[in-house]
Amino acid sequence: MRVLGVDPGLTRCGVGVVEGVAGRPLTMLGVGVVRTPVDAELGHRLVAIEQGIEQWLDEHRPEYVAVERVFSQHNVRTVMGTAQASAVAMLCAARRGIPVALHTPSEVKAAVTGSGRADKAQVGAMVTRLLRLSAPPKPADAADALALAICHIWRAPAQNRLQQAVALHTAKAPKGRTA
Amino acid sequence: MRVLGVDPGLTRCGVGVVEGVAGRPLTMLGVGVVRTPVDAELGHRLVAIEQGIEQWLDEHRPEYVAVERVFSQHNVRTVMGTAQASAVAMLCAARRGIPVALHTPSEVKAAVTGSGRADKAQVGAMVTRLLRLSAPPKPADAADALALAICHIWRAPAQNRLQQAVALHTAKAPKGRTA
Repeated sequence: MRVLGVDPGLTRCGVGVVEGVAGRPLTMLGVGVVRTPVDAELGHRLVAIEQGIEQWLDEHRPEYVAVERVFSQHNVRTVMGTAQASAVAMLCAARRGIPVALHTPSEVKAAVTGSGRADKAQVGAMVTRLLRLSAPPKPADAADALALAICHIWRAPAQNRLQQAVALHTAKAPKGRTA
Repeated sequence: MRVLGVDPGLTRCGVGVVEGVAGRPLTMLGVGVVRTPVDAELGHRLVAIEQGIEQWLDEHRPEYVAVERVFSQHNVRTVMGTAQASAVAMLCAARRGIPVALHTPSEVKAAVTGSGRADKAQVGAMVTRLLRLSAPPKPADAADALALAICHIWRAPAQNRLQQAVALHTAKAPKGRTA
């Protein structure tokens, strides 16, 4: 299972590719950041993010794209940019027929550190250990993108079982009734 | 001057094309709504919006695209979808080299009704009058998209003069000093 994790942002969009299955050692295939100039027009920044994500999809051909789910934050200006960058990442994946999964920051932190309230340093340290890297990936956006990909690989079996159960239940339920 | 106005939304994305110049009667060239199913996956909805916007750009070849500037609202879920839909509209325009302008809801209301706090009915009534339509465009998202395009046509001369003044000032300022 090969997953591209995307930590969306207009100025720095973290990207990381991880391959593996739950219960086995994972492999990092690539990590980086798609950057756009702060003083560029918003439309041009979105085009630059699209081009960056497309390059990562072309090079690594992931089977899944995991994007951080954006919530309202203190800084409304930032959250708008994050939502817009995440839209571009989701669009690029969906256009190719690649399934997109959204994970919340606390789901990602809980998956890699055991605590949904872990700080950046703790996430960086666990990503380094789990992928057997020599140093934590920098900037933090790059480490977060890898953590998203790891989270997706580990959560996917449970999610798939859940989806299969729902699908089975829906298929079995008599028509015209709600389950 | 031909402008495509976009009132962004995931479920209903209003689109309207207006042609004209400030101080002369305006002409509506088209109006409609790009819809996506509420129960579809977010990535697929964004792809559907992209396809819809692309069709409007292909058909009408606008010189400008005016998009509503998204702010934080009461409903955080809605504002995220609005930000994501607006990102797709801006991306489609910028990819073609079409300048994108953002106008706030109160700028648009003030432009067409004289009051930044006008209600939907008032905006619809003025759009109908200004474009000499037989009835207000429905749904409200379609009327709002036309109002955005009208707002852009009327505000553009002032904005262009401002940008030219800034550019002139910047060009004249000696290097190494801040103006």
